[in-house]
Amino acid sequence: MDRMKFLRLATLEQVYSEYLRLVNPLDQIEQVPVLESLGFVSAYDVLATQDLPGFDKSLVDGYAVRSKDTIGANSNFPAMLRFAFEVKVGEEPKRTLGQNEAAWIATGAMLPSGADAVVMVEHTQRFGEYVEVMKPVAFGENVFKKDDDLKAGQTALKKGVRIEPGHVQLMLQLGIQNVKVYRRASVGVISTGDEIVEPFVQNKSIVQVRDSNSYMLEIWLKTLGFKIKRVGLCRDDEEMLFEMIKDSIENHDALVIVGGSSIGVRDLTEAAINRSGEPGVIFHGILMQPGKPTVLGLLGGKPVVGLPGNPVSFTVSAKFVLLPILRKLEGENSFLPKPLGMVRLTRNVSSRQGREHFVRVKLFAKDGCIWAEPLESETAQVSNLATADGVIRLPANIEGSYAGDFVEFYPLWFGW
Amino acid sequence: MDRMKFLRLATLEQVYSEYLRLVNPLDQIEQVPVLESLGFVSAYDVLATQDLPGFDKSLVDGYAVRSKDTIGANSNFPAMLRFAFEVKVGEEPKRTLGQNEAAWIATGAMLPSGADAVVMVEHTQRFGEYVEVMKPVAFGENVFKKDDDLKAGQTALKKGVRIEPGHVQLMLQLGIQNVKVYRRASVGVISTGDEIVEPFVQNKSIVQVRDSNSYMLEIWLKTLGFKIKRVGLCRDDEEMLFEMIKDSIENHDALVIVGGSSIGVRDLTEAAINRSGEPGVIFHGILMQPGKPTVLGLLGGKPVVGLPGNPVSFTVSAKFVLLPILRKLEGENSFLPKPLGMVRLTRNVSSRQGREHFVRVKLFAKDGCIWAEPLESETAQVSNLATADGVIRLPANIEGSYAGDFVEFYPLWFGW
Repeated sequence: MDRMKFLRLATLEQVYSEYLRLVNPLDQIEQVPVLESLGFVSAYDVLATQDLPGFDKSLVDGYAVRSKDTIGANSNFPAMLRFAFEVKVGEEPKRTLGQNEAAWIATGAMLPSGADAVVMVEHTQRFGEYVEVMKPVAFGENVFKKDDDLKAGQTALKKGVRIEPGHVQLMLQLGIQNVKVYRRASVGVISTGDEIVEPFVQNKSIVQVRDSNSYMLEIWLKTLGFKIKRVGLCRDDEEMLFEMIKDSIENHDALVIVGGSSIGVRDLTEAAINRSGEPGVIFHGILMQPGKPTVLGLLGGKPVVGLPGNPVSFTVSAKFVLLPILRKLEGENSFLPKPLGMVRLTRNVSSRQGREHFVRVKLFAKDGCIWAEPLESETAQVSNLATADGVIRLPANIEGSYAGDFVEFYPLWFGW
Repeated sequence: MDRMKFLRLATLEQVYSEYLRLVNPLDQIEQVPVLESLGFVSAYDVLATQDLPGFDKSLVDGYAVRSKDTIGANSNFPAMLRFAFEVKVGEEPKRTLGQNEAAWIATGAMLPSGADAVVMVEHTQRFGEYVEVMKPVAFGENVFKKDDDLKAGQTALKKGVRIEPGHVQLMLQLGIQNVKVYRRASVGVISTGDEIVEPFVQNKSIVQVRDSNSYMLEIWLKTLGFKIKRVGLCRDDEEMLFEMIKDSIENHDALVIVGGSSIGVRDLTEAAINRSGEPGVIFHGILMQPGKPTVLGLLGGKPVVGLPGNPVSFTVSAKFVLLPILRKLEGENSFLPKPLGMVRLTRNVSSRQGREHFVRVKLFAKDGCIWAEPLESETAQVSNLATADGVIRLPANIEGSYAGDFVEFYPLWFGW
C-alpha cells in the first residue's frame, strides 16, 4: 500500500468508511456459558430450540371455555356452564374440556384441550358446581398460543449482535446453555509524554501532569468487557516508543497510544508507528472537535490508535473513534455510535463547517421536552467533562445550531 | 403506621414520592481507592486539592511573548523579537522572558513568567536568533490560566453523585487517591412460582417455565455494581415464602421477590410479606403498563419489591421501580430514571389514560432525526424485549401519541 496516498487528515465519515474497512474482525470463535456471555458478540445466529411460550397460555385469571358455549351471554341471560376442574400454573390440565364446561385457570396456566378461550373472572360468577358467564368471548380471546412469540427454529439472537441482559434472559427462557461468540479483543495502552507522571507520585513538579487518561480508559473499557492492559509510561523518545510498540503489539489485538497534542510529539508518535511495521500511519488527524490530533494506523492488520492527551479530546475520540474500531474488531454488525435521541438546545452553539463538533451538555426536562444546556466548550476546560450527561453532535456540514433546535445526543460513559 | 391506609394501587408518581420517601439511604460510609470507586456514590463533596491545570499553559504550538511587543505587527511589518529559549512540556521555563523576546513553547507547556500570550507558529517566522511575528496577540491569548478550569477548594465531585469514569479521570488529575463513598447495597432475589424450574433442567414438563428473570437481574445489576445474590426458588406456598423472606431479609439491604401475576399468587406473596414484619405491603400494584402487578413493601425499613414474572413486565418494573429504590438506598441525589432524549414515533400508539405506558421500540436515524418504531406491545410477546433498543414513555395523562410526535426515550439495559 502506498503510505503517502493515505497520509492525511480524515473526516469522521472517512474514518468510518475508509479506515474501518481496513479493520478486520478477529473472527476467532469460542463457546461460553450463556450465564457468562454478557458483552460478547454472537458468532452465529442462535435459533430457538422450542416454541415460546411452548404451550397455549391464559393471559388472565378466569375460566377456560369453548367460545361457542358463550355466544349471546349477558348479565341478564348468562351462559350457565358446569365447573369442570382447575388448572394451576405449572401443571398440565387434568383432562379435555367438554361442551358447556368451564375450567378455572390462572394467568400463565396452560389452556386445556377442548377450550379455545378464557373468560376473565370479572365477567363470571361461581355458584357451587356452576359458573355463570356474563359476556361472550371470541375464539382465541385471552389466550396466547404456544408459538405466538417465537417458533422453534426462528432466530432468537442474530450473528454479530452484542449480548445484552435481554438476550441472556431470552436464551435462558429457551433453555440454551452455551453460546458461540467471538473472543473479546485485548487492548494495550501506552501513555506518552515527558510531562506525564503516575497519578499519586509525591513531590511532583508544578508542570508535571498526572496520568488520568490511561487509567480512566482501563476502568471504562473494563465495564464494557474488554481485556485492557496499561502497558506503561513512555517518554517523548522515538526509540523508546518504538520498542514499547514492538513489544506490546505482539500481545494485544489493538494498541492505544495516549499522546500529547503538540506537533513535535505527534511527529514522533507517527515516526515510531511507521518504524514498527506496515502500513503504519493511515490518517494523521481527524476533522473533529475535540479530538483532532487523533492518529490512526495499522500494524500487521492490528489497529494502532493515537489518542490526544487532553482529557476532553481523549474521551470524545475514545468514544467516537476507538470504540467503533474495537467493536468491528470483535465482529459486531452495528459498530458505529448510535445517538439515543434528540435534545433541544437552550442556546445557540457555533461550529466550524468542515468538522464534526461534539459539545458537552447537561440535560434537563421541561415542558414535556428534554433540553440540553451546552457547557463551557473550551477544550482545556476539562473538569466539566465529569458533570456532563454526554455530548451533542453538530454535523460537519453546518455552521452551528440555534436555541430550540433538536440535535443528536450521545451519552459518553455508558452504552456503546 | 396504618397498613390499610396505604394498601392500594399507586401511580408511578406516587411510588416516586410516597414510597421512595419511606426508603432511607443506608448512610454507611467507607473509603475506597479512586481507582476502584466506579459506581459508588460519593458521601461528601470532594474538593479540588489544587488548581487545575495548576500552571499557566499554552493552548498552541508557537512563541510565548509579551503581548505589547506585538502591537501593530503584520506580514509587511512584522514585530522582530529575539529568540530567548525553548519551553517543552513537562519542564519549567529556564528564566523570565524579557522585553522583545520570544520563547518557543509547545502545546501544554508552561508559560514563562514575563510572557502573557502565545503567538501561533503559523503567524511567525524564525530566522536564526530572531523571530518575526506577523500578527499581534492580545493579553492572555492562547493561554489557559492556572485556575481557569478549577480552583483549589472548589467542588470537584458533589456528595450524592454516582461515580462515572469521568469523575475518576478528574480525581486522578487532582492526585486524589481515596474517596469516601456510601457502601453498595446488597440485594437478595427470591424466585417464586410452582411453574418455575432452573433454566437447564432436563426433561421439564411442557408447562414448566425456566427461570430467566432472577438470573438476568443478577447479571444486569452486577454490571451496575450491586451486590446481588439469588437466594433461590420458592414454591407458591405462603409458609415457605415467609421462611425464605425471614431468612434472607437479615442478610440483605433489599429483597426482590420475582412472582407470578395471577391474583392467588400475588395474595400469597403479600400475605408472606405482611407476616414477615412491619409495615409490610405498602402498595399492591402500580398504574403502569407493563409492570402493573408490582408489589412494594417495607420490612423494618428494608425495601421488599415484588416484581411480576412476565419477562417484559419484570424488566420494565425493574428499571422504573426497583432501580430508583436501590439508587436512593445508596444515597444518590438524583435517583429517578432519566430519559436520554426525545424520539419521533413512526406510527400512532394508543395508551389507557390513568396509567403510564412503556412501549418497546427500535431506533433508527432518518432525515436528521431519530425515529422510534414501536414493537409488538402485547406483554406476552417477550422475545422482542431482546431486540428493542429501549422503551418510550407515554405519560398517564394522555390517551396515546401520534405518528411524528416526539416522546421520551429510555434505554433499558445500560445507564441508570
